[in-house]
Amino acid sequence: MPMPAIDGDRLLRDLHDLREIGQYKTGVHRPTFSRQDVEARHWLAYRLAEAGLDAAIDGIGNVYGRDRAPGRKLLTGSHLETQNHAGWLDGALGVIYGLETARVLGHGIDVAAWCDEEGHFGSFLGSRSFCGLLGEAEIDACANRETGVPLRDALDRSGFADRPRRKIETARYRGYLEAHIEQGAELEERHLRLGIVTAIVGSRRFRIAFTGEQNHAGTTRMAARKDAGVALVRLVAAIEDRFPALAGPRTVWTTGDIRLHPGAPSVVPGRAELIFQFRDTDPAVLDALEAALDELVADAARGPCGVAVVQRSSTAPSAMAPGPQRALRDAAQRLAPGQHQAMPSGAGHDAQILAQVLPSAMLFVPSIGGISHHYAENTRDEDIVLGCQVFTEAAASLLSGR
Amino acid sequence: MPMPAIDGDRLLRDLHDLREIGQYKTGVHRPTFSRQDVEARHWLAYRLAEAGLDAAIDGIGNVYGRDRAPGRKLLTGSHLETQNHAGWLDGALGVIYGLETARVLGHGIDVAAWCDEEGHFGSFLGSRSFCGLLGEAEIDACANRETGVPLRDALDRSGFADRPRRKIETARYRGYLEAHIEQGAELEERHLRLGIVTAIVGSRRFRIAFTGEQNHAGTTRMAARKDAGVALVRLVAAIEDRFPALAGPRTVWTTGDIRLHPGAPSVVPGRAELIFQFRDTDPAVLDALEAALDELVADAARGPCGVAVVQRSSTAPSAMAPGPQRALRDAAQRLAPGQHQAMPSGAGHDAQILAQVLPSAMLFVPSIGGISHHYAENTRDEDIVLGCQVFTEAAASLLSGR
Repeated sequence: MPMPAIDGDRLLRDLHDLREIGQYKTGVHRPTFSRQDVEARHWLAYRLAEAGLDAAIDGIGNVYGRDRAPGRKLLTGSHLETQNHAGWLDGALGVIYGLETARVLGHGIDVAAWCDEEGHFGSFLGSRSFCGLLGEAEIDACANRETGVPLRDALDRSGFADRPRRKIETARYRGYLEAHIEQGAELEERHLRLGIVTAIVGSRRFRIAFTGEQNHAGTTRMAARKDAGVALVRLVAAIEDRFPALAGPRTVWTTGDIRLHPGAPSVVPGRAELIFQFRDTDPAVLDALEAALDELVADAARGPCGVAVVQRSSTAPSAMAPGPQRALRDAAQRLAPGQHQAMPSGAGHDAQILAQVLPSAMLFVPSIGGISHHYAENTRDEDIVLGCQVFTEAAASLLSGR
Repeated sequence: MPMPAIDGDRLLRDLHDLREIGQYKTGVHRPTFSRQDVEARHWLAYRLAEAGLDAAIDGIGNVYGRDRAPGRKLLTGSHLETQNHAGWLDGALGVIYGLETARVLGHGIDVAAWCDEEGHFGSFLGSRSFCGLLGEAEIDACANRETGVPLRDALDRSGFADRPRRKIETARYRGYLEAHIEQGAELEERHLRLGIVTAIVGSRRFRIAFTGEQNHAGTTRMAARKDAGVALVRLVAAIEDRFPALAGPRTVWTTGDIRLHPGAPSVVPGRAELIFQFRDTDPAVLDALEAALDELVADAARGPCGVAVVQRSSTAPSAMAPGPQRALRDAAQRLAPGQHQAMPSGAGHDAQILAQVLPSAMLFVPSIGGISHHYAENTRDEDIVLGCQVFTEAAASLLSGR
């Protein structure tokens, strides 16, 4: 059976049209429920309807295009909103791949844009809502991380508040496929054009607070100090010394923020806080790192300052399903032999939520220079087009039940 | 000759009256040129006039009370403004000691309240203005460190802008005496009631910036990272390891602030900055520490991130003069035998400016719990009264030329 060919020009035109909604330099600024974001959702719903799908936006802001024909479907999707002043393909690529695949195959494809994957208001709100993993109480509690505007108010202003939230009918679907930019430089460095995701890493995040004694930096002798900042620095240095021996080849750990209080030149810090996270696909590695962190925190507590892990949160590693992975790999091997690899995803994606209820897999295309969450993010046109053809062929293969 | 006795009740009443101007909890919020600060300056000028002095406020906000009689004088003083939400005695104590001494001795005492010792707009502006160490261009450039209001505007609103700035006539004075709370816990811990300052420490301050590469914390492998935050932490840890061997018994060093950019949980910091300072009375120790810091910065520059000392500033150590020190020590020994000690000042004071033009010395009274720059700052009433009697007797002794 000859495989249907995607329309590369149409695909790129759609992506460029979408880029204009909230364009910022060469990228896009389209945070969740901004005017531009709401416009993008309506734009997508219109495009989905144009493609013959039953299009709607639901009560959490998810955009759906449902195939009207009978039979089991393949669900495709990604997200439309962006990080602040970020890239044009992060999210948009996967959504438009779904749209193009629906157009090319003519039937069997549902397309979704999951709301707020980028976490402006919460954590994977759209895909969790769809999978039945988001309660009303959590929605009540969510607010914009920068402005503090409650999610309920943002939904109301956007015109989505009174709509029902669509929930998954699992029997409808054979599985879920999501395409995304890699957001790293591995494919590019290895001169590869496609990545087939084996698993999405789990991450654990910690807020750690030190309590010392705020004092005058001129009159308080070193021996008398309880310097919360120094205690914090010693913990971070100890983590950097200890973690490499426990890490797997792709484990990553990051101290993303440090704050000293009051943060004045001549004051010994009385309080200090850091945010620390690590990620891996192997729960055993995550457990070993967390145990080591707890030991180092206990060591720190034997110093002059108090120390406490004041917040822990985690997401579990999520393995992608063998069948959809195989369909992606076979299509990649047909279209770009030897130019693809299996790889984990170091970033979180809606597929880790969908994987809890459907056989799911992801396809990566290369990020030029590994840049993401920045307006300079980009992917070569020929990689965008190749990725979509692979995506469509894998979708066709999965729908045919092979 | 019997020594004149101060009026302890009057002294404490003055201090409590002054405390009410800008009272905050048990302390005072009276930043330079706030409404409360201007009120305090007028209150003091009134009290100085009442004591028979020629009182005025000058073009930089300094309050002076000049003895009208002929003959050489002793200059006394400290400051009226406070740090934000800080203590009632920091500055006020030394000013009111001067006032009480002028009243008790009847002649020979000038009293000054040096403007902005606390640095809301600049560095020792009032005492430097008086000593001829502050130019008009610097005044033009000064602005409130929090609000950004230019110093010129603040002087204008306060009604001081069009007045001349008073300059010192050095021949008028035998010397300068300043009393202050210790702001540390050493006197209290040693059960002493008085400190005679031998020298005011010099300090050196550095802003050090690290430049790495901002990246996604999930997709950027450890080996590929240029993490500015980790580079910063490693420098601070290296300082903490290296400095103790180079330090004198009273050397202090402090990392007062750390900032990571962008400071997000899932972003590898691309930039990081710290503010670091150290203090000692010995220029050789300061030089050795600065050389060690420069070496550690050079080591850091061999790592994956760029590092630069983007700002250096320093004040020189300032030795107090032997004559006034002796006068204070003799009076302390008469009134509180064995309950006083010689000690350096770890904090900066106007006396370090006056010491450049006059033989100068300082007297410390204990701070309860070593607390300062906090509304809980306090000193026992009997220590306040004892300190003033010592101060007055030392002043009388210096005036008599003994």
